[in-house]
Amino acid sequence: MIVMGVDPGSVRTGYGIVRCEGDSFSLVACGVIRLGSRQGIPERIKIIYDELEKLITANRPARLALETAYVNRNAQSALKLGQVRGAIVALAMNSRLELHEYAPREVKQMLTGRGGASKDQVAYMTRHFLDICEPVKPYDITDALGIALCDLLRDGTAHSGRRASALSSRRNNWSVFVKENPDLVV
Amino acid sequence: MIVMGVDPGSVRTGYGIVRCEGDSFSLVACGVIRLGSRQGIPERIKIIYDELEKLITANRPARLALETAYVNRNAQSALKLGQVRGAIVALAMNSRLELHEYAPREVKQMLTGRGGASKDQVAYMTRHFLDICEPVKPYDITDALGIALCDLLRDGTAHSGRRASALSSRRNNWSVFVKENPDLVV
Repeated sequence: MIVMGVDPGSVRTGYGIVRCEGDSFSLVACGVIRLGSRQGIPERIKIIYDELEKLITANRPARLALETAYVNRNAQSALKLGQVRGAIVALAMNSRLELHEYAPREVKQMLTGRGGASKDQVAYMTRHFLDICEPVKPYDITDALGIALCDLLRDGTAHSGRRASALSSRRNNWSVFVKENPDLVV
Repeated sequence: MIVMGVDPGSVRTGYGIVRCEGDSFSLVACGVIRLGSRQGIPERIKIIYDELEKLITANRPARLALETAYVNRNAQSALKLGQVRGAIVALAMNSRLELHEYAPREVKQMLTGRGGASKDQVAYMTRHFLDICEPVKPYDITDALGIALCDLLRDGTAHSGRRASALSSRRNNWSVFVKENPDLVV
C-alpha cells in the first residue's frame, strides 16, 4: 500500500509518499513545490497539479491524504488556500485515488501521542518511523509525510504487530526526544 | 469563438456557453449544477469537474471566464468557494483553455453600462444580447452567461461593428428596461 500525503499551500506545497509493506514503512519520495510570489493563482495551481500528477503516475499511490483545512480569520488567505486545495482534491478524484482527510490534531496524536505536539516533534517522529537519519526541512515535507503515516497507521494497513510495535517504539522514541529536546516539549 | 462562463458555488454552480460568429452572439448551452447539502466538498468538486468537463468536450470552448472571487468576511465560506474555484481553474488548465477573470463590476459595466447594476438588470441584458425571450432562472445561469458575454465583448472578439451595435442596442434596451422596471433601477 502506497499513500501520498500532501500539505497544500499557495507558496509551498509539501508532499510525502510512503510505502507500507507488511511490517515496514519506507520513504518513496518527498519534497516541496515552491511557487513564485509573482505567479498568479491559476499558474500556481497548474504547476502544483502537474507536479503531483507526475508523482502519482510514477509512484501509483492508492490514496491521497490531506489535513482538513485550518481556517484562520483572513478570508483572502482562506480563498487562496481553498483554491490550491480544490485543485488537489480534483486531482485525487481524476486519478481515482481514495481521498482521506485528517484534522491536524489527529495527525499529531497518531504520530506523537499528543494532539498539541509541535511541528518539530512531528518531524522527529516522522523521521523515526521512516528511519531517516538526517534532518528533513522545511516542515511542509515532514507535515506531508506525517499525514501519509497517519493514514497508514490509522486504518490498520500496517499489520497490527507492526502497528503495536510502531506505537511502542514511538513511546520509547518519544522519551528519547524529550531527553534530547527538553526545550521543545511544553 | 466559443466562451464558457462559470459562476462557481459549492451549492449551485452556473454555466453559460456563448458562441460569437461575426456579428452575432448565440446561446450554445446554459444550466446550473446543483449540489446536495449532504454531499462533502470532495464529492461536490468531482460532480462539478465532471459535468463541466463533459460540456467542454461537447462544445469545445476556446476560453473559460470566471468572476474574480468575492471574499466576504466568513473565512469558512471563502475556503469552500475557493475549493470549487480551484477545481474549475485546474479543469481550464487541463483542458488547455485560456482562463480569463473579471471583477463583478467589470461584467456589470460591460453589459449594462453600470458597475452597480443588479442581478435582474444583468439577467435582462444577457437575455437581450442572446435573443432569449423567456425568463432564465436562477441568477447563477444569467451571471455565468453575463461573464461569457463580457469576455467576448471585452477583447473585441465580436466584430467592432457588432460590438458598437451591441453597445448602442444595449443603451436602447437599457432605456426599455428602465421604463419596464422602474422599481429595479436604483
